[in-house]
Amino acid sequence: MTMDADDESLLEDLLAGKHRALARTISKIENRSPGYRDLVSELYAHTGDADVIGITGSPGAGKSTLVDKLAETYRDRGETVGVIAIDPSSPFTGGAVLGDRIRMASTVGDMDVFVRSMSARGTLGGLSTATADAVKAMDAFGKDKIIIETVGAGQNEIDIVRTADTVAVLVPPGSGDDIQTLKAGILEIADVFVVNKADRDGADRTVQELRDMVQLGDESGAAGGGGHHSQEVIDAHDDWDGETDADGDEAEDWTPPIVETVATKGTGVETFIDELANHRAYLVESGTRAEKVRQRYAEEIRTLLREDVHALLEDELDASGGINGLADAVRRGETDPYSIANDVLAPVEACVENLETEPDEDGSSRE
Amino acid sequence: MTMDADDESLLEDLLAGKHRALARTISKIENRSPGYRDLVSELYAHTGDADVIGITGSPGAGKSTLVDKLAETYRDRGETVGVIAIDPSSPFTGGAVLGDRIRMASTVGDMDVFVRSMSARGTLGGLSTATADAVKAMDAFGKDKIIIETVGAGQNEIDIVRTADTVAVLVPPGSGDDIQTLKAGILEIADVFVVNKADRDGADRTVQELRDMVQLGDESGAAGGGGHHSQEVIDAHDDWDGETDADGDEAEDWTPPIVETVATKGTGVETFIDELANHRAYLVESGTRAEKVRQRYAEEIRTLLREDVHALLEDELDASGGINGLADAVRRGETDPYSIANDVLAPVEACVENLETEPDEDGSSRE
Repeated sequence: MTMDADDESLLEDLLAGKHRALARTISKIENRSPGYRDLVSELYAHTGDADVIGITGSPGAGKSTLVDKLAETYRDRGETVGVIAIDPSSPFTGGAVLGDRIRMASTVGDMDVFVRSMSARGTLGGLSTATADAVKAMDAFGKDKIIIETVGAGQNEIDIVRTADTVAVLVPPGSGDDIQTLKAGILEIADVFVVNKADRDGADRTVQELRDMVQLGDESGAAGGGGHHSQEVIDAHDDWDGETDADGDEAEDWTPPIVETVATKGTGVETFIDELANHRAYLVESGTRAEKVRQRYAEEIRTLLREDVHALLEDELDASGGINGLADAVRRGETDPYSIANDVLAPVEACVENLETEPDEDGSSRE
Repeated sequence: MTMDADDESLLEDLLAGKHRALARTISKIENRSPGYRDLVSELYAHTGDADVIGITGSPGAGKSTLVDKLAETYRDRGETVGVIAIDPSSPFTGGAVLGDRIRMASTVGDMDVFVRSMSARGTLGGLSTATADAVKAMDAFGKDKIIIETVGAGQNEIDIVRTADTVAVLVPPGSGDDIQTLKAGILEIADVFVVNKADRDGADRTVQELRDMVQLGDESGAAGGGGHHSQEVIDAHDDWDGETDADGDEAEDWTPPIVETVATKGTGVETFIDELANHRAYLVESGTRAEKVRQRYAEEIRTLLREDVHALLEDELDASGGINGLADAVRRGETDPYSIANDVLAPVEACVENLETEPDEDGSSRE
């Protein structure tokens, strides 16, 4: 890895705990500025100490307020906090949902809480990579707690939230229908449920419904597929064959607790923090944390490789006359996408096959 | 392209209009059975005549019933219909939602309506490729109308529904909150809105809310980003630089009509069909259809290339000791994902660069 002098000093400043350097690093990551790869590459060695907490839930559930209170409470306890708020401008969630982040000015002024909004500019995969990299930057910086806040609960959010060690899902009270709709996925990613606005009508029913749902999940888990819920989501999403499926030896299962909060008043936040701590203790004691870390690295490697290889593909496509020319040829009935895919990739495949039959030079020929 | 004798006769039977051959072809596509690529490759030349209609909306909106009535009405008019019902077992939508497809037995018996459920087994991308391929099979078979029915409205569904020429979005009445939630994305993919169960309380309000939303979309369209909504979604999702962005010269915009139906009684289905026909006429007259077809082919080429290249990557990863070994090395602090990505891809990149500097052999060296 080679970094230029600017990035060297940026890294130094970040490791020395300068918030400006952290902000600049995250901007580089978000914009994929030249050199960001080498920079992140260097960050890795300084990571591993932070607790990463993901918070998700449907719009209006009160996430921002809860995250504010959570950050405040951690800070009062003497912990440093970083918040990454994901602002997905993906088609189905709508942009600028976090425009009201100004509310956080009170905590932002105090630099123990560092808030950074990120948006979904590039690919979906790109955002989860950028989020993971931003977490690395905050971790290397020395933040004790890193909170990732995402809106909604689509595949996009699952990918992002999987960057966290512990995932809290907020459920608004009186949302019986929503629980049914979200059931399948939410059950699988939630380590802690939070019924926020618990002073509202219907909160008790929502808690009860969640309790029933969690119990049901536990039973079906015991009966069959079983095991760690987050793991199941990872496997379901994983199309690289079952290599990461090494989770079967887990000692005991984690049953997501259901916490009631009224974030606007700070009610229940201490209990929420206790449950987050319990989950962390569970992760460490059960050995799940080590396994999760390994899986996360595997996922990061895959995602990066795919992004890189997509860039390679683009070059290959250009060499074949550009995507529009190819699409027109299909439209004129001269060829079809499968034939084109074969033609474009044949030389690459031939190349790679040659490499593999040649004596191994051990890869590290770059730069 | 080389097909074996079995596939040759399968193709012949399909083109001759034998439903068994259509069913077998779609199974091959769904299972990615050996030879399916060459088979689909051959189908392309026989496609282009069908109207492809996508129907999506949240669970409980009454999609299946409406699709039934739509198919029935088309059939009564002497048109042949194919239905592809997507059964996503993706984390957030839950599997087996279309178990009640048996209801369609009445229409299935009559082979003018061919119904096929597909499920999300492989990757998300995989399902949209498989759907596109199944549409090709139905188109080559000679179906006049092909209906793609998807549940929910996540990114997964957007990708699938983009296979259609015309997208209808079902909105249940009295779903004020849902409209707010779905607003951003739904507005962009819908060519026609359907308020089904229009005899229920709240239907009028829902229609009015949709009308306001569509109007708002029109205005913001006129003010800025503008143009064809579906196009915007495609661009937003597209990370291959803006090459497909050739839509600016579109003569006039399409404003999605809002149709009220009571599918269980068949009310409004004729109007719905009229609006689908109107949208098709608009596509043809405005030149949007030709552009859409080109974009769809471009998308298909890209998706295929990515899928193929992911398979190549897997081989490369294995050659580098497997993903788990690499993840462990990161965990031990010996390396990091960026360094690994560089190492794994360096030989491939070197290979490809060599190819590009060599005199051009014009690609078609495969088989």
